[in-house]
Amino acid sequence: MSKEKLVLAYSGGLDTTVILHWLSKRNYQVIACIADVGQKDDFSAIREKALKSGAHDVVVSDLKKEFVTDFIFPALRANAVYEGRYLLGTALSRPLIAKELVRVAEKFGANKISHGSTGKGNDQVRFELACYALKPEIEIISPWKDPVFLSEFTGRSCLLEYSTKYGIPVSVTSSRPYSEDDNLMHISHEAGSLEDPMNRPDKNVFTMTSDLIETPDHEEIIEITFMDGIPVRVVNRENGADYADPLELYTYLNQIGGIHGIGRLDMVENRFIGLKSRGVYESPGATILWKAHRDLEGLAMDMQVMHLRDSISPKLAEIIYNGFWFSPEKEFIMAAVNKSQEAIDGIVQLALHKGNVQIIGRSSPTSLYNEDLVSMDIEGGFNALDVKGFIEVNAIRLKAHNTVMRSREKEKVQSETLV
Amino acid sequence: MSKEKLVLAYSGGLDTTVILHWLSKRNYQVIACIADVGQKDDFSAIREKALKSGAHDVVVSDLKKEFVTDFIFPALRANAVYEGRYLLGTALSRPLIAKELVRVAEKFGANKISHGSTGKGNDQVRFELACYALKPEIEIISPWKDPVFLSEFTGRSCLLEYSTKYGIPVSVTSSRPYSEDDNLMHISHEAGSLEDPMNRPDKNVFTMTSDLIETPDHEEIIEITFMDGIPVRVVNRENGADYADPLELYTYLNQIGGIHGIGRLDMVENRFIGLKSRGVYESPGATILWKAHRDLEGLAMDMQVMHLRDSISPKLAEIIYNGFWFSPEKEFIMAAVNKSQEAIDGIVQLALHKGNVQIIGRSSPTSLYNEDLVSMDIEGGFNALDVKGFIEVNAIRLKAHNTVMRSREKEKVQSETLV
Amino acid sequence: MSKEKLVLAYSGGLDTTVILHWLSKRNYQVIACIADVGQKDDFSAIREKALKSGAHDVVVSDLKKEFVTDFIFPALRANAVYEGRYLLGTALSRPLIAKELVRVAEKFGANKISHGSTGKGNDQVRFELACYALKPEIEIISPWKDPVFLSEFTGRSCLLEYSTKYGIPVSVTSSRPYSEDDNLMHISHEAGSLEDPMNRPDKNVFTMTSDLIETPDHEEIIEITFMDGIPVRVVNRENGADYADPLELYTYLNQIGGIHGIGRLDMVENRFIGLKSRGVYESPGATILWKAHRDLEGLAMDMQVMHLRDSISPKLAEIIYNGFWFSPEKEFIMAAVNKSQEAIDGIVQLALHKGNVQIIGRSSPTSLYNEDLVSMDIEGGFNALDVKGFIEVNAIRLKAHNTVMRSREKEKVQSETLV
Amino acid sequence: MSKEKLVLAYSGGLDTTVILHWLSKRNYQVIACIADVGQKDDFSAIREKALKSGAHDVVVSDLKKEFVTDFIFPALRANAVYEGRYLLGTALSRPLIAKELVRVAEKFGANKISHGSTGKGNDQVRFELACYALKPEIEIISPWKDPVFLSEFTGRSCLLEYSTKYGIPVSVTSSRPYSEDDNLMHISHEAGSLEDPMNRPDKNVFTMTSDLIETPDHEEIIEITFMDGIPVRVVNRENGADYADPLELYTYLNQIGGIHGIGRLDMVENRFIGLKSRGVYESPGATILWKAHRDLEGLAMDMQVMHLRDSISPKLAEIIYNGFWFSPEKEFIMAAVNKSQEAIDGIVQLALHKGNVQIIGRSSPTSLYNEDLVSMDIEGGFNALDVKGFIEVNAIRLKAHNTVMRSREKEKVQSETLV
Repeated sequence: MSKEKLVLAYSGGLDTTVILHWLSKRNYQVIACIADVGQKDDFSAIREKALKSGAHDVVVSDLKKEFVTDFIFPALRANAVYEGRYLLGTALSRPLIAKELVRVAEKFGANKISHGSTGKGNDQVRFELACYALKPEIEIISPWKDPVFLSEFTGRSCLLEYSTKYGIPVSVTSSRPYSEDDNLMHISHEAGSLEDPMNRPDKNVFTMTSDLIETPDHEEIIEITFMDGIPVRVVNRENGADYADPLELYTYLNQIGGIHGIGRLDMVENRFIGLKSRGVYESPGATILWKAHRDLEGLAMDMQVMHLRDSISPKLAEIIYNGFWFSPEKEFIMAAVNKSQEAIDGIVQLALHKGNVQIIGRSSPTSLYNEDLVSMDIEGGFNALDVKGFIEVNAIRLKAHNTVMRSREKEKVQSETLV
Repeated sequence: MSKEKLVLAYSGGLDTTVILHWLSKRNYQVIACIADVGQKDDFSAIREKALKSGAHDVVVSDLKKEFVTDFIFPALRANAVYEGRYLLGTALSRPLIAKELVRVAEKFGANKISHGSTGKGNDQVRFELACYALKPEIEIISPWKDPVFLSEFTGRSCLLEYSTKYGIPVSVTSSRPYSEDDNLMHISHEAGSLEDPMNRPDKNVFTMTSDLIETPDHEEIIEITFMDGIPVRVVNRENGADYADPLELYTYLNQIGGIHGIGRLDMVENRFIGLKSRGVYESPGATILWKAHRDLEGLAMDMQVMHLRDSISPKLAEIIYNGFWFSPEKEFIMAAVNKSQEAIDGIVQLALHKGNVQIIGRSSPTSLYNEDLVSMDIEGGFNALDVKGFIEVNAIRLKAHNTVMRSREKEKVQSETLV
Repeated sequence: MSKEKLVLAYSGGLDTTVILHWLSKRNYQVIACIADVGQKDDFSAIREKALKSGAHDVVVSDLKKEFVTDFIFPALRANAVYEGRYLLGTALSRPLIAKELVRVAEKFGANKISHGSTGKGNDQVRFELACYALKPEIEIISPWKDPVFLSEFTGRSCLLEYSTKYGIPVSVTSSRPYSEDDNLMHISHEAGSLEDPMNRPDKNVFTMTSDLIETPDHEEIIEITFMDGIPVRVVNRENGADYADPLELYTYLNQIGGIHGIGRLDMVENRFIGLKSRGVYESPGATILWKAHRDLEGLAMDMQVMHLRDSISPKLAEIIYNGFWFSPEKEFIMAAVNKSQEAIDGIVQLALHKGNVQIIGRSSPTSLYNEDLVSMDIEGGFNALDVKGFIEVNAIRLKAHNTVMRSREKEKVQSETLV
Repeated sequence: MSKEKLVLAYSGGLDTTVILHWLSKRNYQVIACIADVGQKDDFSAIREKALKSGAHDVVVSDLKKEFVTDFIFPALRANAVYEGRYLLGTALSRPLIAKELVRVAEKFGANKISHGSTGKGNDQVRFELACYALKPEIEIISPWKDPVFLSEFTGRSCLLEYSTKYGIPVSVTSSRPYSEDDNLMHISHEAGSLEDPMNRPDKNVFTMTSDLIETPDHEEIIEITFMDGIPVRVVNRENGADYADPLELYTYLNQIGGIHGIGRLDMVENRFIGLKSRGVYESPGATILWKAHRDLEGLAMDMQVMHLRDSISPKLAEIIYNGFWFSPEKEFIMAAVNKSQEAIDGIVQLALHKGNVQIIGRSSPTSLYNEDLVSMDIEGGFNALDVKGFIEVNAIRLKAHNTVMRSREKEKVQSETLV
């Protein structure tokens, strides 16, 4: 009987290597799909490892550019921030990888997709929802939710025993005592000693950003240009470094942001499945872009649009975090967001210094800021008497409310006194 | 004919001093109300100045404690942040001052209230709406929207000429080339060279916070305790400083936050009246509290409550910013917010360092975080198979959407091909 | 070995009778809990049937009054309407029944609760979430999601076979070709011929409301009095009928509404689990109250509060529909809603006629409507010139937007022309 | 000196006729713009009257088709309903008329626009904001907010005296004791005896819809076809009447809806300027379309999209009601709405009868309803066990909340007992 084709999201780590081997020992012809979303890895070594561990085919997909232009930039443009702080670095990479898994599955004629995400996390949800959304007829094999697999692997030590037993190499990717997800946008650190939310992360946790104590004593001035809410150029005012390619400018911001210790975050967040978890994140480039973009909106975005967008962007962040990147509700909100960004053009100047991203100036060809109109020294174009009417009309409602409530209070007092 | 009593919000600055004098020369018996909301001022000197400038009575009201407990803490508890960044320092002091003006008016039997806020700003709106909301029958005299006053004072130089002419002293409050509002919660800087949003603020702009270059090289560890979302204690882990009184703990956070250069903000914001303006703010204590409170919510607030609150808190910030502190819509939202804070109890540890507020630990007696449940090493209390069902059910809708859209796409292609 | 105690939500229908018997044959000592939420049933016959079918104990709980005061009235007060139309009749009864199941379980010292809701519906979710929310340690036995039960009962015919085999009576409750849920607030009709959304319901589907053709030719005038958004009195202006007891007034509105054919609804709705389903509903009393309450709010509710509430009430309806009645997010929203209803007092006059609920008059001691102020013939208290300023200030933003967009358009045209 | 050109929105009524004459006596060369938005009027008589009353030019603009396709249909498609009930008939016509005024002004080289809307209403705001939004440099002459005009016309009797004095004919448009706005979408009735919200409207108030007592005893079955949320065809199943042209189908729905007494509304609403007012409306065609469209969405719109849309559409209605049709915030929301309507295709069957619009069937090529999936008799494609997991995962959060709250309660009781 011929084996069934299955595409596995393969990282080279212990979990997915054991899973690869385990699946290939069963009824599957495994196509290992290695998605390069910017993580620091030796992809040819991972490819070798996949082949040695039972993969029938290996695909290494360079998704970095697509990640920046189709996932990171749109999310930053929409000011999508989960629970007020998390910039969604992992949540954004998952639907991209799922899209690639579906693409590879279609290319190889496979009807099954598998991944190594565990049963308590968000990533399983994101992978699976994205795959289903893109290809409803796909079947997903999720070992960490498979009773047979779970009965064989009751703890992480079983993975090591299994790999020893079958001679599976374990050393390609670094083994750190945290659960980490590394990509262009960020690196996340979870588990291990971080599971106690009162434990401060050790310095060795951080890999993308320098400790404040080691960051330069001087500030670095950079300038970011946006067109329609998308960063199109980054210039370093100190040394003239100048990038316009999306991937290059993003990589540069990560590098320089990291040097200045920018973009660390330590938070307890709510997973979609109802658990709280503690995550430590480093997102230097994203932090810089997010602050710059938000600032430019101050200059070029209409007030009412901004306030409406601000009331809806937490929902968008939730949608992305929960794994609904490919969903009609995300398209619904994004249609409005895209409209709002049509004239978010201009330049933001920033000083990077000791973990801080200071906005020091901004200008825009579509600026709605009118220095003359707002100036305290100029009367032009503005009639103070109009504001009198504006306030009086706004007060009508408040006066009526007060009057009713006061008379109601009085009646209550009277009726209570009578009783 | 006897003069009409009028209560004037008096700051001791040039504008309100001229206004005081001007009103007292007219048909008004002016009661100067000096509200101490924590600004750095010599209140007995200001009292003297008021009397010399024509005040019939002077009231100095110490509102600092009320400001902290009834305005600052509730706003921080509600995570009210205007346009994603501004902590509302000025917007919160205005309704408090208005409340005091009304109280003084009632005490003195006055039917008129006056203030010196200009016709292009937010503060006139905030003062007047708050007064109308608290006492609909009050009459507001707003010189900067009065045609007679405006025709006499066509520019700021006229104020100086007037004060020279009438021998009004101008030196009590410092004269800096910015328009500033100073209170316990923050100091704002506007106008002057800051009117060009591309101009970086000079170092001398800042008065509450040290420049990064001058801040200590070591971090300072503090611990903030919250009960029902309200800060009730601050302890410095380095030196044992320990505060529980609201005003004292807030003042201490301002002080230590200032030393570490925390809470600077430079933004272009939208005024209620439809103008954009550029503001530079310093809010050291508020910034620390806001970050600590938000973090503790991560541990102790239900996910759905947080997400709902996050979608509604921009509206609350807008309400406060626009001057509707005393309004039924603010009470409507606050009722929900208060409910959400009932169990936001616990301790947050923070490291203050070089402008950064790093959360380094948090614990809570009402924590919803369950280390065992979320741990990657423990299976207890959680069934991975349940998550399979959870995902499958969440995918039903996405699959249906994809199927319909794909068949729709196909029909479109066919019908276009036929044409 | 002693049997485990289990509380079963028992309706007397075929499903729950078979389930009762099936569970009692297994390791359970079944306490049948019959919840009277106003359905038309012979409760002593149902009690008998339960005992004959294997129940160890039977509890008949009269929950009608609690249903009206603690579930129906609060939901109507909050204007909770699911997907713009459904008044939540079934969704509101489920948490009440669950609360009673938990109460009975605690009384009998049982740790298990069971119900007969099927695996594709909303009610299973509502029952189970409410039980878990009230008593996290409870264990729920859900036969229609139990593999053993499902393998024995692969279709509804198996239920009949089983009842024949074991001599279980099937005739107590009527057997109609629809799946129906009947309570004080409404009756729902689903399944059978209604599954095709193009099939119009037969006349015999409807049981609470008359067909339009059979309703009276004259209108009936009634008057409903509200206090704090809660109906406290209903008077029939024709015949003087007068009710103040919550249950009595509600029952009366159902009766008179039914006579006039009020409150029918036929819709395709979205179940929480992602399926769409077609439901036909009759809610005469609820429809009348909802229209009357909404109308009175027009008179007595502040504009901004109403608009905020209207943006959040669809979420509340979703929360209730999905089974989260006992949840922190429902309490969060309800706190605001309760605040908004504090002065919704007054009287609404309605004409009931041929399926229509016409509002014909309303008055309120807390009315915010000011006839003099709004009258076109009176100038009092209102200065038309203020509105000029109001409009001018509101236009500032629009003018700026137009100017920027026009110049942007021009530049685009120029740059395209150059290319 | 040559007179300045001014475009006046001219209705032929007493107010605008007097205004026309008054303006032409001043420094204006008046171009009277008569907008035909479907009101029942004799436009050639109105043209004559304008010329006799001092107009230099008269333009009669037939805007009916544009009104239907660019204003009515988009608003119904977006489910824009103000304060839960009002379909925005007047609010939608104002920006269209303003657009025409601007067009006429540009054609004639005029820089001024005038209208006769009074100072307490919404229409002045809508006209002026729309004009400013379309042409910021326009100057608006609003007699009812002009001190000179107001001092001359202190009441409505002055208008009659003026017209007598100058021999201005007053009889072209009917004179009814209400303030009415008549267009294709609806007719509104305000003022007069309706100003008391307790007064039931007389039967003679209504002009577009029959009284229930006079409507046919039989129901009429019609079928409406939608494409992308827009009605494209109406068929009468009784007599075969069949319309596809937007204006014709809309007019037909008005006619047949009117015969059956559909679309009456009596409400107290909140005007933008903070006053409450009582309006009586008749919108037969709009009511039918709105119900049909909403129903079809039940079949073809994704659940999450619908719930998001429902939370945002009250804001859209507010935006339109307040006069911000031409605004960036309306474009922001409409972008999302348009996205949501991309597959709202299908047919809705309705029975019109005695004021009722009953949905009796619906079908859609893009239906997301799956009869097999939802059927209680079929297991296909759905695994009940998945729902178990779905519920368990949804309950995690609720259990944690209950546990924390219960232990908190206990502690409180203990600490209170100790005290």
